[in-house]
Amino acid sequence: MERREHISATFDLELDELRNNILAMGGKVEMMIADSVAALANRDSALAERIIAMDREVNGLEVAIDEKCLQLLALRQPAARDLRFITLALKIVTDLERIGDQCTSVAKRVKELNEEPPLKPYIDIPRMAHWTETMVREALDAFVRGDVDLAIKVCTDDQTVDDLNVQIQRELLTFMIEEPATISRAIKLNYISKCLERIADHATNIAEMVIFMVKGKDIRHTMP
Amino acid sequence: MERREHISATFDLELDELRNNILAMGGKVEMMIADSVAALANRDSALAERIIAMDREVNGLEVAIDEKCLQLLALRQPAARDLRFITLALKIVTDLERIGDQCTSVAKRVKELNEEPPLKPYIDIPRMAHWTETMVREALDAFVRGDVDLAIKVCTDDQTVDDLNVQIQRELLTFMIEEPATISRAIKLNYISKCLERIADHATNIAEMVIFMVKGKDIRHTMP
Repeated sequence: MERREHISATFDLELDELRNNILAMGGKVEMMIADSVAALANRDSALAERIIAMDREVNGLEVAIDEKCLQLLALRQPAARDLRFITLALKIVTDLERIGDQCTSVAKRVKELNEEPPLKPYIDIPRMAHWTETMVREALDAFVRGDVDLAIKVCTDDQTVDDLNVQIQRELLTFMIEEPATISRAIKLNYISKCLERIADHATNIAEMVIFMVKGKDIRHTMP
Repeated sequence: MERREHISATFDLELDELRNNILAMGGKVEMMIADSVAALANRDSALAERIIAMDREVNGLEVAIDEKCLQLLALRQPAARDLRFITLALKIVTDLERIGDQCTSVAKRVKELNEEPPLKPYIDIPRMAHWTETMVREALDAFVRGDVDLAIKVCTDDQTVDDLNVQIQRELLTFMIEEPATISRAIKLNYISKCLERIADHATNIAEMVIFMVKGKDIRHTMP
């Protein structure tokens, strides 16, 4: 019995460590989101370079967390709730890694944009980035706390990001039609807006999986 | 010993069943890709409706395969290669489900487009859909066979789909600039092209994970 308790306490520590590793990976991609838009707003190509370099770290974290999950599955043979938590962790790190990829795509476009005169002051894109970053943070908080209400909030917020994306696309289209010389820059900004929208989709995917983890099979795929 | 062999044979059957279920789910989303573009080319809104309905089946398959994976992890306590296969299956069905979501988005835009006169004969979008569908099928074949060469081919083909997407976007932009009355339709076609590109990204993600499963940690995230 004593030995069993010891194993269980160790396992709890390992699960805590897994939770913390995911939050740390999340913190890194949240920073990448904020930095990629700061690099755009401040025309800071050096920062864009650092984001591209940071993506390798994020990829490394994904591989490390995946391995940790496999180890826990193989050695601890978890059941029920713990099993669901670990398998969800496996899915979530894939979303986080892809968020890192999107930030890298933004950073590459920012570097190109910084070589041309600015098209306009950027207001909506930083707003969109702020929403997106918050969604990622809240989706992960919802995951580690099993907080369904917060996860539902993330799914609802996705609409705001989608609306901002549509608004940005319309505005850029106006630029392109009125002044064809802006087309190349407008296409890049459009691409950045699309990347942010995809990041918000990843956050929403995480949130939906959290709802499913907590509430069971009847909830997923029926969100508004 | 006999009992152990019996368990092992049963487990092999269960793994085969899991493999077949994933291929069946893959077959369904491949059909959705082909059908969504057929609904566009043939202006067939009834077919678009059927695609939207089919998405619920795909969602159900994801939940069922997830549950099967959890069961196998909990009851069979697989190690090494089998463990890696099952956890990869968990990740892959998420990609397949999201491909289904993208097809549904295409189908919704197709229904809207069918209510307006056609903008132009569709040539590049069906070509792009054909490439995309092939990528999904080959990524899953690579998964069930552990075929790294085929997985690498999928990653390489992604460039062709990206190029087609850029080409389609440029052409649509020309329409919009020359004839502002086409803008609303061009934006929808642009969206459809983007959806196909995202589907190709999911296929690429699956292929990259297959390479990782077979070759180990040094390959993922270093693909060309």
